[in-house]
Amino acid sequence: MKPERFEKLRSMMAERDLDAVALVPGNAFRYYFGVDMPFLERPTVVLLPRSGEPQAVIPALERQTWEGLGFPGEVCYWRDEDGYTRAFAGLAGKHSYRRLGVESFRMRVAELFAVRSMCEGAEIVPIHAELWQLRAQKDRDEIERIRHAAKASEQALARTLDTVRVGMSEVEIRATLQQHIAASPGVGVTGELLVLAGDNSARPHGRSRLDYRIRRGDALLIDFAATFEGYTSDFTRTAFVGAISPDQRAFYDAVRHANEIGRLAVRSGVTAHAVDDAVQCSIEQSGFRDFIVHKTGHGLGLDVHEFPHIMRGNSAILREGNVITIEPGLYKSGEMGVRIEDVVVVTAGGREELTTFPREPMIIG
Amino acid sequence: MKPERFEKLRSMMAERDLDAVALVPGNAFRYYFGVDMPFLERPTVVLLPRSGEPQAVIPALERQTWEGLGFPGEVCYWRDEDGYTRAFAGLAGKHSYRRLGVESFRMRVAELFAVRSMCEGAEIVPIHAELWQLRAQKDRDEIERIRHAAKASEQALARTLDTVRVGMSEVEIRATLQQHIAASPGVGVTGELLVLAGDNSARPHGRSRLDYRIRRGDALLIDFAATFEGYTSDFTRTAFVGAISPDQRAFYDAVRHANEIGRLAVRSGVTAHAVDDAVQCSIEQSGFRDFIVHKTGHGLGLDVHEFPHIMRGNSAILREGNVITIEPGLYKSGEMGVRIEDVVVVTAGGREELTTFPREPMIIG
Repeated sequence: MKPERFEKLRSMMAERDLDAVALVPGNAFRYYFGVDMPFLERPTVVLLPRSGEPQAVIPALERQTWEGLGFPGEVCYWRDEDGYTRAFAGLAGKHSYRRLGVESFRMRVAELFAVRSMCEGAEIVPIHAELWQLRAQKDRDEIERIRHAAKASEQALARTLDTVRVGMSEVEIRATLQQHIAASPGVGVTGELLVLAGDNSARPHGRSRLDYRIRRGDALLIDFAATFEGYTSDFTRTAFVGAISPDQRAFYDAVRHANEIGRLAVRSGVTAHAVDDAVQCSIEQSGFRDFIVHKTGHGLGLDVHEFPHIMRGNSAILREGNVITIEPGLYKSGEMGVRIEDVVVVTAGGREELTTFPREPMIIG
Repeated sequence: MKPERFEKLRSMMAERDLDAVALVPGNAFRYYFGVDMPFLERPTVVLLPRSGEPQAVIPALERQTWEGLGFPGEVCYWRDEDGYTRAFAGLAGKHSYRRLGVESFRMRVAELFAVRSMCEGAEIVPIHAELWQLRAQKDRDEIERIRHAAKASEQALARTLDTVRVGMSEVEIRATLQQHIAASPGVGVTGELLVLAGDNSARPHGRSRLDYRIRRGDALLIDFAATFEGYTSDFTRTAFVGAISPDQRAFYDAVRHANEIGRLAVRSGVTAHAVDDAVQCSIEQSGFRDFIVHKTGHGLGLDVHEFPHIMRGNSAILREGNVITIEPGLYKSGEMGVRIEDVVVVTAGGREELTTFPREPMIIG
């Protein structure tokens, strides 16, 4: 547990007039306690008050893991036989919190109801954004983990592209990619590996197909988030199978140019808006403005999507330690999509790129 | 979309006096719509009323995926620029639901608040258990997918155990396992791969360590849930590195015997209680009752943990199509843990075992 992280958390509570924050297993939990816990059907909640002793309500099954943590507060273990509803309700009346912050994009209805039964009358305040904000500036250790995941991603993609041949299915290529990622010790994947060819590449969150076999002339979009020690990278390249037509080339070059504009726009002191605006203007001037579907990028760290979001209208100022993606894309429905995604760190002097994989159009297979 | 699944859902709504059910991306969503959707920071909600037209609130970014689905109801697409809070609140007043069922172990506080802003005044009723119940009896297709994942698991474990040597780290062994799983096209993993040696094997949900190198005499517990087309298996074996001591052997045999008792107890018409009771009695008689930490098992399907839970006190009757784990374990804190986990299908005539990997004590490395 890192005391400076708790101090910042308490300052946020003061600013938002919160008496306590409730955390459930997940990335905020991991950020503050250094470990994660299972997040299945056994509610696990830690209450961190602005002042006074924290309290944890932990499934008895996880007692050993939890005890290894040195948690400096009261712990209530609940057993399956008792049922969590009863266990949480039995703790009612111990707190008189007026305003309780919760992780709105992580805490589930089950934990919310359990926490409510413990802290009757407390106003529930969604603070997911505030928790992301507290994690937006990464320290050196965090950046090194993301770098490791990014390097492993590049290596796995290079090895995968070497083996792609006309006639392979998206799922087959994905399996190869998975194997190459798993070959790096400690490196895993979060979310879906996207391997999307032809018309499927035009779906920003499409799924790999078992039955579609790639053809000469297809765009092949590969996007995945490799992880290392909890931290995630996010990386996309779009290659072309066998050949690239002049139309595809123009489409690709517009994205590639926007990606470069975006990377060059990143530095400490500019707004997230300014970066997205530079990227969008670049695409708008390219003649492909009708094929824009999404913003330029997002922060990443323990979550694949963190702060700051790189989008127009976001006045957040980029600061040293922010780690963001620059991932412009264009999508021609039913035909093809192109996305080129890199990970960039904001440094004191400017920026550092954690992914440097070639961006020239690649003809493969 | 399978109409008979919706019919059963509507019957449940009638029984529970619900006017509608709200689904978010995840396994219930997948069960009813045949596809999943991203579940990140963009709330996506489908409202299924007991009668009348369903309604979907979908991020504009996912429009293409959603349109491919042939959803038979009203769809409202919301854009990032508008913000989801505003988009959902803008739909208020269209419904007059009194009681609205929600997935309490899936829906997050963000979606709950969004749904509340749409359906003002509705009573929120947690129905996660009911949704699991509706999925408890698997059809033939579902069972075949679980079988496929189970067979891939056994193959990957066999290949991994062949390569284990004294001095390897848990994380190294896990990477090998990951590669062997990924070698089966379309097979993935849900949750953590557990590769736990020595004292770490005594933690039912421990994490693989980078720095611990396995030694002669260690128990090596490997537990993972491979998936195929959304469906998951769950599979554990415990091997011994180089040698097994008489104490370890007795401990192991108690678990192995309990696993056998458990499998043999499975048949249509008995209660989940009876199966767990047989297993627990077997362990209690073995002299190792102090090292029991958890119940015998759980159902599985789209989720790793589904109904029925195989535990004392659960009067649910096993029925044809239930797919459950039998996974007794014993854990001697600081020394070793042993768990042997198999997947069993309840059939009309009795049971079928989807995992048949050897259960004799294995000496490896």
